[in-house]
Parts: sequence; structure tokens; C-alpha cells
Amino acid sequence: MKVQLLDHERIDELHIKGYQIIQSQERFCFGMDAVLLSDFVRGKVGANVLDMGTGTAIIPILLEAKEKGEQFVALEIQHESVDMARRSVELNGLQDKIQVVEGDIKEASKLMKASSFDIVTCNPPYMNSNHGITNPELPKAIARHEILCTLEDVIREGAKLTKQKGSFYLIHRPFRLAEIVGLLLQYKMEPKRMRLVYPYVDKEPNMVMIEAVKGGKSRIQVESPLIVYEKDGTYTEEIYKIYGINSEKPME
Amino acid sequence: MKVQLLDHERIDELHIKGYQIIQSQERFCFGMDAVLLSDFVRGKVGANVLDMGTGTAIIPILLEAKEKGEQFVALEIQHESVDMARRSVELNGLQDKIQVVEGDIKEASKLMKASSFDIVTCNPPYMNSNHGITNPELPKAIARHEILCTLEDVIREGAKLTKQKGSFYLIHRPFRLAEIVGLLLQYKMEPKRMRLVYPYVDKEPNMVMIEAVKGGKSRIQVESPLIVYEKDGTYTEEIYKIYGINSEKPME
Repeated sequence: MKVQLLDHERIDELHIKGYQIIQSQERFCFGMDAVLLSDFVRGKVGANVLDMGTGTAIIPILLEAKEKGEQFVALEIQHESVDMARRSVELNGLQDKIQVVEGDIKEASKLMKASSFDIVTCNPPYMNSNHGITNPELPKAIARHEILCTLEDVIREGAKLTKQKGSFYLIHRPFRLAEIVGLLLQYKMEPKRMRLVYPYVDKEPNMVMIEAVKGGKSRIQVESPLIVYEKDGTYTEEIYKIYGINSEKPME
Repeated sequence: MKVQLLDHERIDELHIKGYQIIQSQERFCFGMDAVLLSDFVRGKVGANVLDMGTGTAIIPILLEAKEKGEQFVALEIQHESVDMARRSVELNGLQDKIQVVEGDIKEASKLMKASSFDIVTCNPPYMNSNHGITNPELPKAIARHEILCTLEDVIREGAKLTKQKGSFYLIHRPFRLAEIVGLLLQYKMEPKRMRLVYPYVDKEPNMVMIEAVKGGKSRIQVESPLIVYEKDGTYTEEIYKIYGINSEKPME
């Protein structure tokens, strides 16, 4: 499949099923969080999956590669990202599996049918302050800061679109954990699984992944710590495994 | 200081300031949780401290030893435990510092003045099912299962008794984390610090410690993982440090 690249765009390898992704230095490039979240998601055969704020559609592409879903909707508000995501989907021949929809997370439940997804995922903007942003229209700022949607928008819309007993997955910064749990409970999404990502075994975590089940019973499984680096700064065995790479550095 | 021991009672060393504690095999003996919680508490000079469900008063005795408070109230419902706690307080000459009060956590805010403690601690019963308990009057069952008080009782009463901007500390099982956070938020106690205790670096955590601040702003600091054992089954350096013991096994 040949697709057109714009200036500043490049094609990166995903190291799984030969899939590739179009990224641009000028926009938000996917990080370890998307890879870790796609590992954390428990797929279901035939699952109908929605990814909210999909950016370049990295999460649906990885979930499809890992056979964790059947049909995917990738929702994104930024037109240029939608365009890149659509070309990445084509590049991998996934047009029958992944539908990229241009639209606003805040209005997601108006764009799609309520309670229609087995799985909803989101790697939302982490920061709730816009401190230090000189141009709030910058694509990277929109991906990182709650400029166009808040955490509550994400959880409210995710809750509406998840089927009863379906799962909503979120990766976020640990400093917002209490707020996340409070909002999930408020919207009847029961936190059922959680995993903290610690850069080093003796450091504070910098990511948290949560699975909430719509209408689930109160009981959460907190998983083993996910440690990213060994003391010498090389990746841990588990990180290599998640990236599907042996003995080489998975990323630059 | 000489105190009387009853049948089945023994005196154990606490490895700090020469303090000792009276325990009985027939009742609940303190575990690592009390030691870890007293390490997790951030003391304040002159702090007025309440420990709810104090058992043998292990937490107030450790906090006093670590100079994390000035005046302590140790609340306990089981008469025999109250009696043991009072004798342990005497044994260490702490009668001027630690007052052991016989009473029910559920009624704590009727026994003491509202918003009067800088610090409230609790190592409550962990289990919300009474499955398998043949005699619910057993002292150990009361300490382990929510027979006499629920998690909500603990958090509601703790919230009432903590001063504005004061701290409420809880150690519990991770499977109840979402419920704990939900109740804390409901009672206006903002979770501000959390630490998970993992028995081994590749295992699920078996304890969680939380500090909630009355009327605090939404932002939680999740701390580095507390790992208990090295791969070979010996304690980690941090556990030795918390117990104040070098190179020897801190416990039997």
C-alpha cells in the first residue's frame, strides 16, 4: 500500500505484524503510554472498540495487531491528525477494521450510539493546568493539556458509550488518580484493575492504567508494578516483551 | 516499670527506644502493617493523634517512639485489648503521652471532640465478608473482619475527628482501594499520598497506605513501590531500615 506523505511526516515501524505508522515531528508522536495501554487492555474476540482522542490511531492499530478487537472506531478532533490516522490505516490495509471519525470527545455520545462498545480506550491529555502554553492551538498542546476536553468529559462520554459490563480503559498520570477514581464511581464505572508504571524500582510512578467496568461490583485488582528501566538505564525484560523486541533497544 | 502478665501473654521487643509490647497468642498480634503505617505517617511537632481500633496500642507506641506526635488517644472496643494496651503503655512509662480509651469506632465522634486531631490513624479490619468465621466473637475475627465496624464507619468517624487540613491515615488491602477513595472523597477527605506494598517486585501488592487531608485540594502523590522481599526471600534494605534493624531478620 502506497500512501502520500506530507512535509515533516515520516513512517515509523511498529514492530508488530509489519505494521507502520505515519508521524510528524511537528505534531504529537506516540509514546510508551500508547504501547503500555494496548498491552494492558484485555481483548475480546469480536469486540467492538472505541478509542477516544486517537491522534494517529496508534492504539487501534496496536490493538488490532494484538487481536484484541474486531471493529474499531478511532475518534479524533484535530483535522490533520484525522488525515494522518486515515493514511496510516490505509498504509496497513486496515480500512475494513478501523474507521477514523473526526469529532469532539465532549460530543462523542451524540456521534455514536450509547452503550454500543465492548471496549472504550483513552490516552487523554494529562495536564489540567495550561501553565506555560503560549499558543493553546498548538497540536502538541491539545494532545497534552486539557484545552479541548477535561477528564470529566472523557469519563462521562466513555461511560455513556461503553456497554453494560463492558470495559473502559484509561492511562493517566498518577497525581490524578483520586480524581479519576472519583469520576469513574460517579459515572457508575467501577474500577476493576489498576497497574502503576514506575520508571525505576525506587522511584515514584509516572503512569497509571485503569480498567473500569460499567456496572461492575466493588473490588479492584492492583497488578504487579510495571518497572520500565533497570538500574543501569536499560529496559527491563517486561518492557522488551511488551514491545515485542529482544535484546535491542525498542526505541531511540 | 513492672506490669502484670496474664496467662498466654508475653512481652515483645519493639527495637526502638527500648520499648516493649504485651501480646498474646490468643489475640491479634501486630503485624508488618502497623510498622509500615507508623513509618508512612508524617508526624508533626506537638501533634494531637488518634488511633482508632488500636488493639494493643502498637501504632501510638511506635509513633511516640518516632516522635511523630505529642499526645495520643488510643481507641479500642475490646476490653481485654484495652487492658493489655494500658499495661503496655505503663510498661514503657508513657502514661502522660498515650491515653487508652475503651469505646466503639462507630461512636468515636460522640466520645471525642469534632475536628480535634491533627492526625488520625487506623489499621482497620480488612475483610468485608465474614465467610468462614464460626464464632464471630473471637477477638482475632473482630480485628480482621468487619464485624463491629465497616470501612464507611472508620472513614466517617475519622473525617469528623480530623482537624481541617489535618491528616487521616489508613492501611488496607489494595482490593478495596476504589471503595476507600470513593468514601474518602464522599467525606471530604482528599487522598494526597499513597504507597503500595508489594511482597515481591513481580507480585501484586498486598497492602496500600493512604494519607487523606481534610479539605485538601485534588492531587495525589503516589510514592515509590515498597518492596518487602528480595528474590531470595530475605527482607529488602528498606524493610530493614523501617524496622531499625541491620542485617538481622527483624521478626521471628
